[in-house]
Amino acid sequence: MNAIILSIGDELVLGQTVDTNSAWLSARLASLGFAVLQHTTVPDDQPAIESAIRRAVTDCDLLLINGGLGPTPDDLTRQAVAVALNVPLELNADWLSRLEQFFRRRGRQMPEMNRIQAMIPRGATLLENHAGTAPGIAATYQSCRIFVMPGVPKEMKRMFDESVVPRLPIDTRHGVILSRTLHTFGLGESNIAEKLGPLMDRDRNPSVGTTVSGGVVSLRIDARFETADRARQELDRATELCQAALGNLIYGRDEETLQEVVARQLIEKNLTITVAESCTGGLLAKMLTDVPGSSSYFQRGWITYTDAAKSELLGVDPDLLKTDGPYSDPVAAAMAVGALHRSRADFALSITGIAGPDGGTGDTPVGTVWIALAHAQGAAARKFNFPGDREMIRDRAAKTALTLLRMRLLNAAVPF
Amino acid sequence: MNAIILSIGDELVLGQTVDTNSAWLSARLASLGFAVLQHTTVPDDQPAIESAIRRAVTDCDLLLINGGLGPTPDDLTRQAVAVALNVPLELNADWLSRLEQFFRRRGRQMPEMNRIQAMIPRGATLLENHAGTAPGIAATYQSCRIFVMPGVPKEMKRMFDESVVPRLPIDTRHGVILSRTLHTFGLGESNIAEKLGPLMDRDRNPSVGTTVSGGVVSLRIDARFETADRARQELDRATELCQAALGNLIYGRDEETLQEVVARQLIEKNLTITVAESCTGGLLAKMLTDVPGSSSYFQRGWITYTDAAKSELLGVDPDLLKTDGPYSDPVAAAMAVGALHRSRADFALSITGIAGPDGGTGDTPVGTVWIALAHAQGAAARKFNFPGDREMIRDRAAKTALTLLRMRLLNAAVPF
Repeated sequence: MNAIILSIGDELVLGQTVDTNSAWLSARLASLGFAVLQHTTVPDDQPAIESAIRRAVTDCDLLLINGGLGPTPDDLTRQAVAVALNVPLELNADWLSRLEQFFRRRGRQMPEMNRIQAMIPRGATLLENHAGTAPGIAATYQSCRIFVMPGVPKEMKRMFDESVVPRLPIDTRHGVILSRTLHTFGLGESNIAEKLGPLMDRDRNPSVGTTVSGGVVSLRIDARFETADRARQELDRATELCQAALGNLIYGRDEETLQEVVARQLIEKNLTITVAESCTGGLLAKMLTDVPGSSSYFQRGWITYTDAAKSELLGVDPDLLKTDGPYSDPVAAAMAVGALHRSRADFALSITGIAGPDGGTGDTPVGTVWIALAHAQGAAARKFNFPGDREMIRDRAAKTALTLLRMRLLNAAVPF
Repeated sequence: MNAIILSIGDELVLGQTVDTNSAWLSARLASLGFAVLQHTTVPDDQPAIESAIRRAVTDCDLLLINGGLGPTPDDLTRQAVAVALNVPLELNADWLSRLEQFFRRRGRQMPEMNRIQAMIPRGATLLENHAGTAPGIAATYQSCRIFVMPGVPKEMKRMFDESVVPRLPIDTRHGVILSRTLHTFGLGESNIAEKLGPLMDRDRNPSVGTTVSGGVVSLRIDARFETADRARQELDRATELCQAALGNLIYGRDEETLQEVVARQLIEKNLTITVAESCTGGLLAKMLTDVPGSSSYFQRGWITYTDAAKSELLGVDPDLLKTDGPYSDPVAAAMAVGALHRSRADFALSITGIAGPDGGTGDTPVGTVWIALAHAQGAAARKFNFPGDREMIRDRAAKTALTLLRMRLLNAAVPF
């Protein structure tokens, strides 16, 4: 089965936005067994969209369109699809009332121009949008299935997984590809590749490849076999081999995040955590509370950016701050102990260091960060050096703190 | 003058690599006065490349091709260009000797497969590559100029600037395009479009279009004029018209973030801010400390997720928490006042509410959030309803809190 991806937006052909949707959709389609013939991008220009659709439907079995479903006059995809399919646009009364409700709940009247978002080509099916006001569209033209999704990546991804995949014409004669992703944090891509060794050989099936995003090195395992059962078995076997090679460097799989895994550990053991943050400024607490139900393990935290705040809120000895300086093992440990005692939590994590871009010195360059973990039996601090800019350093520091806690909850040594 | 960009590579249509070349080239072309009609991406498949070239040359004045110039058997762009142009490939003896020299200098013999990199279509011109082994190709087909460049972004960019731009058929009659982006937060895209009214008419020059990302509605202004001077003047004039229509809903332009703008306000007025966060769990503090130098206006903050934490850390009256509940105007105000008094800051922002997915009730559904701002003269709380999932609700709540502070620092009423 052949697919074409059509992305629509002035911002794309003007080079103001990089199209990441096409790559994301292509990766999903590949794993579902589709060959992607082409990506096409055209501006918010109705004749251009119509002509791109007309060309594509004769060339492929599946056309995925994204972008141009907003309510403003420069959103013309809906209209172009109707013209290309030779059908009129019709009002979907159900979605219209949902739109009106959406605005009413926020104390506003629906602007007249949003009405267009309840219009779909005659004969087409409306696709749910759980993250925005624009529904998607499913239609058929001759032998080509067409799905139209919003251009906002988050809305597009959710709609694709929830509403498009279940409607795809999947051809199982050529076998199936099943995929799984395993996530690691703490070592770089080349270290992980070394540990995996021959598991990453190009001609293996299942194949194992690595990608990196936000310091997380992920292994993608693809199993291509005649039947789904066989593919699943082989996927499980390859997963075991990766786990044998990497041990608890692997923290989760597929959509799991590091914070979800740590949250599950805390909930299972009925334990609580508090935080005392300096350079991460709330990021670690934010990650811990990303997870629904986080109030069962996280109840309070402190952001102490200055020396005075560290002393006044956490009881860090002002003399210690003077003698050792705010960036040191003893201060990191004292911050964690202070937070622990003031919170009645089982664990406390503290982070202090230099996120930059200024403030680095020869001994403690930008990226030098101390992280401490305290519990009833004591506290231990450790110094790290993180690469990158301010955002990257803060992100890696918070993820490293979560990993120290994860290892402690596993009663395992930190593997880096 | 119209342009089409054709990107070639299996890794692109398999979704393993995001195509950033097309956006980079589009931005360059726009500033040179070209209208980009389309981006097309095809795999390393010779018939597919040939057919994409044949379609493109009839539609545009300028075709920029990138990718598929490497030495391996899956690099087929050179061959496809020759077939599409109906000419044979010929060996360029000069480039061949340079290739041989390139390898000799590294103490190696040139692999036979690299010979193909010295072949170009008859009648075409070779373009220098200062960063790799594959030269580019400049050719003409009827009235269409064709430039073929490597896919490696670094090689492509240098070749474009050094070898392609000087050869471009630049039509100065149609002038240049200059762009600017203005950012707003607080109203939806359709409300912003209503306020802009005829400024968004499709046939205006400068043109104004809207895009949304993370709740931020951005206006993109494009000015196409004969000279850069005129375009700059018109861009300034259109910016003034947008500002007249939207007032201080506009917080910044181009790369500016909301937190940077608020940080600049605080630094200019030598004021400080503290936070007391419940449902956002540290996100507001994280945003305030995203900005380098944030310690000059942010020194401490509290995350108080439970009733006990709100009372013990911020002094919120336990009776108030019982009578009004943790999600209420009085508790939001008491949190802000408590943080203000415990911090010696000039302002305190508090956030409490229901980020979901659970915990909503009929009266206070998921997304109901109270935000309060306190200062020496008093405190005011306000209730909001944010759409979306947990992540979106927390993001919108934190950005709304920043906006309340921004308006206060402007001595302006909140425009939503």
